[in-house]
Amino acid sequence: MARTTPDRTRRSERSRIAILDAARELIGEVEYAKLTIEAIATRAGVGKQTIYRWWPSKGAVVFDALLSASENPEGGGIELPDTGDLGADLRTVLRATAAEFADPAFAAPLRALTTEIVNDPDLAAVYRERMAEPMRAAKRRRLRSAQRAGQLRADADLDLVVDMLYGPLTQRWLQRSGRIDAEFADALADAVLRAFAPA
Amino acid sequence: MARTTPDRTRRSERSRIAILDAARELIGEVEYAKLTIEAIATRAGVGKQTIYRWWPSKGAVVFDALLSASENPEGGGIELPDTGDLGADLRTVLRATAAEFADPAFAAPLRALTTEIVNDPDLAAVYRERMAEPMRAAKRRRLRSAQRAGQLRADADLDLVVDMLYGPLTQRWLQRSGRIDAEFADALADAVLRAFAPA
Repeated sequence: MARTTPDRTRRSERSRIAILDAARELIGEVEYAKLTIEAIATRAGVGKQTIYRWWPSKGAVVFDALLSASENPEGGGIELPDTGDLGADLRTVLRATAAEFADPAFAAPLRALTTEIVNDPDLAAVYRERMAEPMRAAKRRRLRSAQRAGQLRADADLDLVVDMLYGPLTQRWLQRSGRIDAEFADALADAVLRAFAPA
Repeated sequence: MARTTPDRTRRSERSRIAILDAARELIGEVEYAKLTIEAIATRAGVGKQTIYRWWPSKGAVVFDALLSASENPEGGGIELPDTGDLGADLRTVLRATAAEFADPAFAAPLRALTTEIVNDPDLAAVYRERMAEPMRAAKRRRLRSAQRAGQLRADADLDLVVDMLYGPLTQRWLQRSGRIDAEFADALADAVLRAFAPA
């Protein structure tokens, strides 16, 4: 049985980082559908088998590359801004999301990845555990703080509030069915606030 | 140059209907990813080339099959119920949509098709013209009638209202991020009504 030496562990970690860096670079350069595991391996200076040892699919390695780019290097959890003004904070985060969706370098791989998640239950489970649920928990925390401050009705279903904030934005982006800009973000935030205003 | 005789036209129309029927049957029997043009051709009793003469891709023929199933045989346009009570009518249509999403026979092909639409701009354009826009226009008509009846604020952006009604439902379904049932449909309809209640 092969023993894992410290040297071997360091080499593995170096390869893993090189692969994620290569994937992140390539999704900015190549259309997602044309991106291959082979191209990632070549750029990273590793063999294809090294990638397949750690990731089951192109979707999985691209997902990890996007995720490691957005993870806090200090290891802290995700937090939404909390200035004490729920309206201002929601407009800030929805405007930021709208700007990301409008940025082709960000949006193109995310669009392709979103469709893989929709059709691949395994990738969907990883996505839920590592990205969707931590994000949703952070949104719920911000909304709960607003409930305590009397800015949101006490009986609001916070998952419904989250879905009403992000569903219309994501849907409009995926279906290209309308303009996504700061004005849309503000109108959406304001409408959701009215829907859950304290009685 | 070949002249199109009445007989030839009738044969073409028969083939077209047989292909759409075959596609519709097969999407209820076979997982979408495993459905092939060849299987549709065999079931319809035509050659693969006959299908490729009319449709550029599997997504396109499946889309037409789903669309022709939902089109009104009398040729009438899509209309939302208008009982005079906007709240009741919105709960009715959102409950119906939630029930469709919860029905595997309907949801599985629609899920696969949705992802093809997200990634295929040509199919997306056909979808917008033949399905999304007529549906959206019908929803706007119902909301405008409610505005005239004083049940919806006069300055409401009707496209935003439509997105807030359907975005959260579609998003929750695509991402499998929560329960989709009559209770969710009602809570969503009620929240949107509060957001756009007359001042």
